[in-house]
Amino acid sequence: MRIYAILLVVTLFSSAFSDETPGSYLLPRPLIIEYPSEIETTRHKKSDDEQVNLHCTSWRFAAETNNLSPWQTIPAECAEYVKDYVIGKGYTTDLERVSEEASIFASSVEFSGDGKDIWIFDIDETLLSNLPYYIDHGFGLELFDHSEFDKWVERGVAPAITPSLKLYQRVVDLGYKVILLTGRKESHRLVTVENLINAGFQNWDKLILRSLDEQHKMATAYKSEKRDEMVKEGYRIRGNSGDQWSDLLGSSMSQRSFKLANPMYYIP
Amino acid sequence: MRIYAILLVVTLFSSAFSDETPGSYLLPRPLIIEYPSEIETTRHKKSDDEQVNLHCTSWRFAAETNNLSPWQTIPAECAEYVKDYVIGKGYTTDLERVSEEASIFASSVEFSGDGKDIWIFDIDETLLSNLPYYIDHGFGLELFDHSEFDKWVERGVAPAITPSLKLYQRVVDLGYKVILLTGRKESHRLVTVENLINAGFQNWDKLILRSLDEQHKMATAYKSEKRDEMVKEGYRIRGNSGDQWSDLLGSSMSQRSFKLANPMYYIP
Repeated sequence: MRIYAILLVVTLFSSAFSDETPGSYLLPRPLIIEYPSEIETTRHKKSDDEQVNLHCTSWRFAAETNNLSPWQTIPAECAEYVKDYVIGKGYTTDLERVSEEASIFASSVEFSGDGKDIWIFDIDETLLSNLPYYIDHGFGLELFDHSEFDKWVERGVAPAITPSLKLYQRVVDLGYKVILLTGRKESHRLVTVENLINAGFQNWDKLILRSLDEQHKMATAYKSEKRDEMVKEGYRIRGNSGDQWSDLLGSSMSQRSFKLANPMYYIP
Repeated sequence: MRIYAILLVVTLFSSAFSDETPGSYLLPRPLIIEYPSEIETTRHKKSDDEQVNLHCTSWRFAAETNNLSPWQTIPAECAEYVKDYVIGKGYTTDLERVSEEASIFASSVEFSGDGKDIWIFDIDETLLSNLPYYIDHGFGLELFDHSEFDKWVERGVAPAITPSLKLYQRVVDLGYKVILLTGRKESHRLVTVENLINAGFQNWDKLILRSLDEQHKMATAYKSEKRDEMVKEGYRIRGNSGDQWSDLLGSSMSQRSFKLANPMYYIP
């Protein structure tokens, strides 16, 4: 449409111009010649952009639906796409949606009132956002650096994921027991507690971190074992919120699981 | 950029025009006034489109990651979005991706050679496409009509999902036992077999359809029970391809599951 608009303006002005000033008919020429070429470039660029967008959306879907083999970094060609998604509206919209859906479900569960209904939350990219770290580390394009990430964790300044804080408060208000089950190590307990409280999270029932002898375990196994224990103790796992499938799959799965978006990294 | 281009053309021509023909300064005015208004409309429309696109992409993600409560129809505001996705490149790209990922995994499994490694395929929207039916029924906007859909199934003309046929052939060639596990009813066995063969599918080991007394069961329970039996018989379920989470979740889950895209309907 806009291409036609430009050509229309050029044409209208050309004829008006040539009628009134017959001697200067050459003047509009560069404009007429230059514009289509610029439009052509824009069109090619648009077509390339569309291809990348299609490819990277498809990659993101495959990642979010757990169709990919374990991956260590995001595809290089999707670096800009992932950046635009996480710092743009897409990520926020997705996080709000999953919070709302979880909240609807949490409210719909009929409570027995024996205090055995629990909701599990993962921490990183579920309650707390490490986006400030990933902004400085290529949004998942760089290989994960444990010691660099540990330094970030130890600063204890990760902000809350606002829609998750809303869900968290709703779940606490509804009377669920809240269990925080994280892959963070036991030595980070204090800084994690401080960070959570400063970010607005309170009143959890238990915070489970990895002990030294659990460091080698795959996340799916470690988290499944912890859920198995809860079930053995007679708890009913009603909801489970996590950004990794390893937070959600395995044994003693919850009644409903909620997968938060995370296109930046994968934990098996 | 283009807006500036138009204004630049207008400005260039206006000044040239007014220099040469001082009396006709009023002529370009309507053009200058009208164009921004047209651009404004386009901009608003674009902004509305972007909002709908954002909202519906987020809905699709929530659906594909199993974050939604059971839903009966697609959201009315996403009707055009879903149509564009399934008849455009998005759906095909996603189906190709999941086929490729599954194929990579299938090839990576180390076989014991005892003939106990199996791959399960769902049928509708996994091997066979009912898109011709959904094109005539609002792409999921209409409430599901069992008798209308049965008539379509009984015609036996559902085309193959090409990327799935490619995966299917690869899986057969690799030596997996192939089990087709479908929610279709036993009375549709003959037409289903004919349809599958005409669409290019051959050499499956078993086709499991719902018997009369299984009609009332939820898909997750029905399919889990069938998988339980396979495991009891000593089979190792290596891969499972389905467009519904009820094809993939429950008991005796496969080593790797592959979720094909389906934004048109949900089976609990």
